[in-house]
This record gives sequence, structure tokens and C-alpha cells, in this order.
Amino acid sequence: MPNAATQPLFDCARELGIGFYLGFAELTIEGGVTHRFNTSILVDKAGRILGKYRKVHLPGHAEHEPWRPLQNLEKRYFEVGNLGFPVFRAFGGIVGMAICNDRRWPETYRVMGLQGVEMVLLGYNTPVHNPPSPEHDNLAHFHNELVMQAGAYQNGCWVVGVAKAGSEDGVRQIGNSIIVAPSGEIVAACPTEGDELAIARCDLDLTLSYKNTTFNFAKHRQPQAYGLIVERAGAIPPPLE
Amino acid sequence: MPNAATQPLFDCARELGIGFYLGFAELTIEGGVTHRFNTSILVDKAGRILGKYRKVHLPGHAEHEPWRPLQNLEKRYFEVGNLGFPVFRAFGGIVGMAICNDRRWPETYRVMGLQGVEMVLLGYNTPVHNPPSPEHDNLAHFHNELVMQAGAYQNGCWVVGVAKAGSEDGVRQIGNSIIVAPSGEIVAACPTEGDELAIARCDLDLTLSYKNTTFNFAKHRQPQAYGLIVERAGAIPPPLE
Repeated sequence: MPNAATQPLFDCARELGIGFYLGFAELTIEGGVTHRFNTSILVDKAGRILGKYRKVHLPGHAEHEPWRPLQNLEKRYFEVGNLGFPVFRAFGGIVGMAICNDRRWPETYRVMGLQGVEMVLLGYNTPVHNPPSPEHDNLAHFHNELVMQAGAYQNGCWVVGVAKAGSEDGVRQIGNSIIVAPSGEIVAACPTEGDELAIARCDLDLTLSYKNTTFNFAKHRQPQAYGLIVERAGAIPPPLE
Repeated sequence: MPNAATQPLFDCARELGIGFYLGFAELTIEGGVTHRFNTSILVDKAGRILGKYRKVHLPGHAEHEPWRPLQNLEKRYFEVGNLGFPVFRAFGGIVGMAICNDRRWPETYRVMGLQGVEMVLLGYNTPVHNPPSPEHDNLAHFHNELVMQAGAYQNGCWVVGVAKAGSEDGVRQIGNSIIVAPSGEIVAACPTEGDELAIARCDLDLTLSYKNTTFNFAKHRQPQAYGLIVERAGAIPPPLE
């Protein structure tokens, strides 16, 4: 990056003095081995790449499942990201990235919160219909907002969620782009399924009101009680008596 | 427990065949040392104590601070709980407990979620006014609901939040008791600051819709990326360039 296809975007952004976040499918050879990651980069207003993130939480499944009206084969086409959840000094603050399904996991925001993140940028392509759980479909916007609002509040950071809207390959997307303040309040949103631009003035100092009080991690967190979070992936219920 | 003061509660509950959760200040001597914990117990419908929890996330401060119109001296009077976040087989399911400020921390729910928790019981006495951050006061109900709704959804469990309402020693409490479904939806609530009873039918099998799909932890969690959650308490920002 940039390649021929994205160079015009970099050029235009530099000309206008606007930084950006960009998601893409990354094909890379490391140690002689070919890897594919679901990746995003952070670019400053001079067009320089400041940092890279590779998606950790791949949803979906690894094999074609004919019963599904739409496939979600991220687990087939991508590897789990191997860069953790890094943050970067950018735009006068501390900025992190996440991609799509990452936003549903509180660990995503917390690992960045523990590095002082002030703004999380994340993009998502989320279908309205989730074949394994159609009973969740009518809650899609509620869940989308809930996880980002909680992530923002519980870490005292801004969250900028940018959605694919409209229909892609016949699959309707939820849209529902929002900008969330460190209070957890939604301060800007795209309410339609068409192309829209949402703008908010994001004062990074608003993070202090939360980071220094309720969510003063150094004063209040108790890592000795959190061991299971890193000791097991799946749930293990207590033994039956 | 039970002591003389609480025996009538145990007797009445047993007579009616109703289990309960009860919070209290625990004074105990362990290894010859006196300890004080902010504790809760889970009692079955026969009046038997099934489990105990000691509050992990103590809010407030350890010394009297005269500038405050109200003190929050939990860090003075209690030790941090030393039992982790245990869950218990109870009422035909898997039940965990939390107390007050615990509910604002995603780690609370997640550690129980990793033990298959199906219902979290928690009580809270939360003042309307928080002296260090008065700018949060008008968001108190929003924040209260947000953290429990996110905890329920992200772990596919019920959350039963029971509030002190009204005024105690001249300090107005937020009330806002709610029962949250595994979908994150509030299915019962106490809307006033008076005494109220909220009732909901909590089907524990509704947890499966979330635990087996979006939040199938074994399939989707990536603990190797979560190390910081247990490696540090406070936030450490990246170095300045």
C-alpha cells in the first residue's frame, strides 16, 4: 500500500490534508510463506502509513455450507491477525483500529484501552440477515450500537464505526455508521441505507472525564481476578454435582 | 449467615420456596487475621447457601476527602474480594454474582461467561451524584443499563440488576433495577424511585441462541491477543516519538 488502485485515494487525501483508515484484503509473504489477512491501515494527512492492524476475530465458518442463503467464509480465506491490537500516536492523540466482528468483543477495546487509546476506528460489512441466528436480525442495529457504546464508555474513548450500507452481491447490509463519544453517547450517525457522510468534532480531551474517574484502570482494575480471560478460549461449565 | 437479623428472611423464603441473593458486609477471621469484604450469597429455595462472592471492584477512595459532599469509602473499609468470580449450579442452571461497581467492568461478565454463566445476579447502591464527575450524573441510568445490556449480550446470559432506590442518609440513589435478556434487551424494569417488584420469566435456554452462534467462545475468541488484560492494571500509553 498504496498500490495502483489506491494511489488516487492517497493523493486526494494528501492534497486535502485528510488522514484516513482503510481496510483491505492483505496478501503477504513472510518467512517464505504466503499469508492472507483482513487488514486495515492508518494513514496521516500527509499520506504516510502510520500503522497496520490485522483482524483478530474472524466470524463465520471455514467450509461452504449449502444450507446458508449467504456464506461467511472469513475463517476459510483469512488467518487470525498476528499483530495484536496495537495503538499509534496519530492526529494529536492515541488511535487504534478494529475490523467488523472485532467490535462485538470487549477484549478488543480493553487491550487498546490498556494502551491509552483515545479513538478506535473500525469498519464493518454486516448483513441484515445472519443465517445461524435469524432471531437476532431485528436486533442488528441495537447490537451494533450496544457494543460500540459499551466499548467507548468502558474505556473512555471515541469509537468511529463506519458501515457498508445498501446491498452488495444481493446481500442487504445494516449500515448504521455511528460516532460514539467517551460517554457512550452517539453523537453522529447515518440513518439511511444510502451513501452518507457523518461528521463530528471529536475532542480527545473528553476521554479524561472517564479515564481519570470511573475508569481509572490503575486504581480500580484487578487483573489477578481475570485469569480465565487468557487461560481458556471456550467456556467450561462447572462440574455437575 | 444466617444470623439472628437475617434468619427471618431465610425462614420466609424457605416457607415460600423462593431462592435469593443477599448482599452484606462480611467480617471474617481467616488464618488468624480479621478481614472485611463486601459480600453476597446465593441461597436456594430450601434456604441453603449455595455460594459466596466477594466484591472485586471496589470504587471510591481510601481516605476521607472533605471536598466531597458525600464519601465513597469502600476502599477504606473493605478488602478486594479473594474468591474471583465463581459460578454455581443453581435453580436448574449456572448462576453467578456481582456487586454494584463490578457491573461496569466487562471482565466481570467475561470471567463468568467463560464458566458458562446463564444468569448473573447483582445489586447496587448508586448515588445520582458522583462528586468527581458531576458531568456524568445525567447519564447515570444510561450507563447503568448500557453495561448490563452489553454484559448480557456479549456473554449470552441473563443479568438481574437490583437497585437501592430512594434516598439513604440524604443521598439520592438512581434506582433503575432492570432484568436483561441474553439478547441485551431489557425485559423488566422499575421505573420509579419507590419500592417496586419487577418480575420476568427467565428462560435459561434463551442463552443458547447467543452462546452457540455469535458468542461461541471456543470458535471465535483469541486469548493469545488478550495478554494485556491480565498483564497490567493501569493504562500505559505508547512512547512519545
